[in-house]
Amino acid sequence: MTTNDVWPIRKRQLQAYMEEQGIDVAIITSPTHVYYFTGFHCDPHERFLALAIDVRSGAETLFVPLVDRLAAQQQADVSRIVAVSDTDNPYDTLRANTVQPSSIGLEKNFVSLAAAERLTAIFPDARLHDLEPAILSLRMKKTEEEIAKVSASIALIEQVMAHAVKHAAIGMTELDLTAELEYQMKRLGADKPAFESIVLTGARTALPHGHPGPTPIRPGDLVLIDIGVKAQGYCSDITRTFIMGEGTREQERIYETVLAANEAAIRAVRTGAPISVLDDTARQIIASRGYGEYFPHRVGHGFGMDIHEAPSIHGENGMLMEPGLLFTIEPGVYVPQIGGVRIEDDIYIASDGSARVLTSFPKRLTRIG
Amino acid sequence: MTTNDVWPIRKRQLQAYMEEQGIDVAIITSPTHVYYFTGFHCDPHERFLALAIDVRSGAETLFVPLVDRLAAQQQADVSRIVAVSDTDNPYDTLRANTVQPSSIGLEKNFVSLAAAERLTAIFPDARLHDLEPAILSLRMKKTEEEIAKVSASIALIEQVMAHAVKHAAIGMTELDLTAELEYQMKRLGADKPAFESIVLTGARTALPHGHPGPTPIRPGDLVLIDIGVKAQGYCSDITRTFIMGEGTREQERIYETVLAANEAAIRAVRTGAPISVLDDTARQIIASRGYGEYFPHRVGHGFGMDIHEAPSIHGENGMLMEPGLLFTIEPGVYVPQIGGVRIEDDIYIASDGSARVLTSFPKRLTRIG
Repeated sequence: MTTNDVWPIRKRQLQAYMEEQGIDVAIITSPTHVYYFTGFHCDPHERFLALAIDVRSGAETLFVPLVDRLAAQQQADVSRIVAVSDTDNPYDTLRANTVQPSSIGLEKNFVSLAAAERLTAIFPDARLHDLEPAILSLRMKKTEEEIAKVSASIALIEQVMAHAVKHAAIGMTELDLTAELEYQMKRLGADKPAFESIVLTGARTALPHGHPGPTPIRPGDLVLIDIGVKAQGYCSDITRTFIMGEGTREQERIYETVLAANEAAIRAVRTGAPISVLDDTARQIIASRGYGEYFPHRVGHGFGMDIHEAPSIHGENGMLMEPGLLFTIEPGVYVPQIGGVRIEDDIYIASDGSARVLTSFPKRLTRIG
Repeated sequence: MTTNDVWPIRKRQLQAYMEEQGIDVAIITSPTHVYYFTGFHCDPHERFLALAIDVRSGAETLFVPLVDRLAAQQQADVSRIVAVSDTDNPYDTLRANTVQPSSIGLEKNFVSLAAAERLTAIFPDARLHDLEPAILSLRMKKTEEEIAKVSASIALIEQVMAHAVKHAAIGMTELDLTAELEYQMKRLGADKPAFESIVLTGARTALPHGHPGPTPIRPGDLVLIDIGVKAQGYCSDITRTFIMGEGTREQERIYETVLAANEAAIRAVRTGAPISVLDDTARQIIASRGYGEYFPHRVGHGFGMDIHEAPSIHGENGMLMEPGLLFTIEPGVYVPQIGGVRIEDDIYIASDGSARVLTSFPKRLTRIG
């Protein structure tokens, strides 16, 4: 499949769903989904952006701010573009370009009540359906082409992780190291961090969702780094935990437990098996080594254009693994006072059903500083 | 007025408006406005956060995620806190704690259609009113206490600007310098940039809304830096334009024109005069020196907790200046091929009606490198 095939295929999938549900017109307004269906990235700020797809006629119209018209003409896979100037009322423009529908599909968690009221005013007879679950379910299955972008995003963040290994030093604070890593992300071409970077040291590594603070790295500290970037529209997400200098026996034992859980969960990825198996596998290993109570979160999460997408990788998720899924595996053990270890990789289930580990940063316990 | 007085005063102002409009219950869900009325900062992510104010009984209830209960108890100025766990249905909790209203006030541009439908399901008889315009109008008038936070945010960004003057060098790219400045913002304690930092060099300074790219700074370049941070909940916003080495006569002439426009507009700030005077004043000076066609944007904008707030400082705004307003003055001249200059300051109209220039970074043309 070439780039140019992707957008029409996605639009056809959406149209098939709309026909099945009896939805006349889709009005898609989140920039993420406008990109997903047309290949056109646009941040309209306060202005109006919408992709209207009418299944009755097959008409597709992309409404863009006037300032973005040229970019849309160059990038958007769509049959018609209508530019909306700052003095136009975009809802008048939308109405003038749309045959009155009896039902509209939109993203109910994205569209504001104010926008919904304006839609209802111009299309008074239309029932409003939520398209978001269907779109999220399409997005859950990634193509090889999307994985190429995810892999580029991972390659970038792994360079940043390598920089962390070289750059971390005794006395440097969590905040200093965070700033240095985010600086590298930008220099290497990332659009932005994919989430708030987590850099924790010493006993603070035992906070599974701690924020970087003014705490300095000390000799013998565990140093936990959970970072990712968004680049070309796709996220990466990786965690590694290091030791500053010499670790204790207990730290090493925690590390080896988490590494074993990470590797076993990855080995358990298999098309047709329930997702819950992945969480169970990691949890069993951690429990068998006596750390069961110190693993308080799910073992992973799907991601893609957003850092958290379906599927959620937890013990109650009975959904079967299938080709196209992209998710993290990130078991952790967090022992108060002593510290925490998390090791996170990114996994893709390819079309032949095989599990591909996209992250390649070394996982053996590494001493830094 | 001490800190502790601020929150009850704001809530009373909101209640007065609700009584006047016949609104029974306000349900405020944007984290910015929950902070504005209670002093409690919370980022609930996907979870439920709401401040309910019932004017019929005077009851105030803050609904917070269970994980944030302790912080809310310590920080929120509110008479009652209800924690919502991940297994609760937050709308059931809201209904159980609210006497059925016949009208609800909410933020129609913030609340999603999905959330509005859930509210309508639990309060089927309630009409929905938009509270946003009234809240934005309250927010437009800043207290001295808010200005103290804005001033701290400005002091921080001016340190970063001073760093830029020392650090900028021939051969460094716009992106390199941007990354360095954002690194300094973080090191100095900013929560984040208040907007996408703008660092442009050479002919690219003529793009009023250009994004930093891989272009290196060359001798004789104008270097335009428009940066700000969010710190303690409040923004700063400053632009300075420098010359790398020696400038041309034309560059200096553009600079002096913009500086004269900036200073004249600031001198024109006066309680009781229309806001349009500020834009007119800057525009007249720029036009009189032959650059009228190269000043394509309004002269400024209000700001505060958000980087763009009311009032908009443009030539059609007949609103009268009054104490409490906080806004930028940022004329610019952008000549294609040659380059652009923008000089931006932050102005507050104090309670005695005097204009206070909060930014203090030098404005005389500065040679760097």
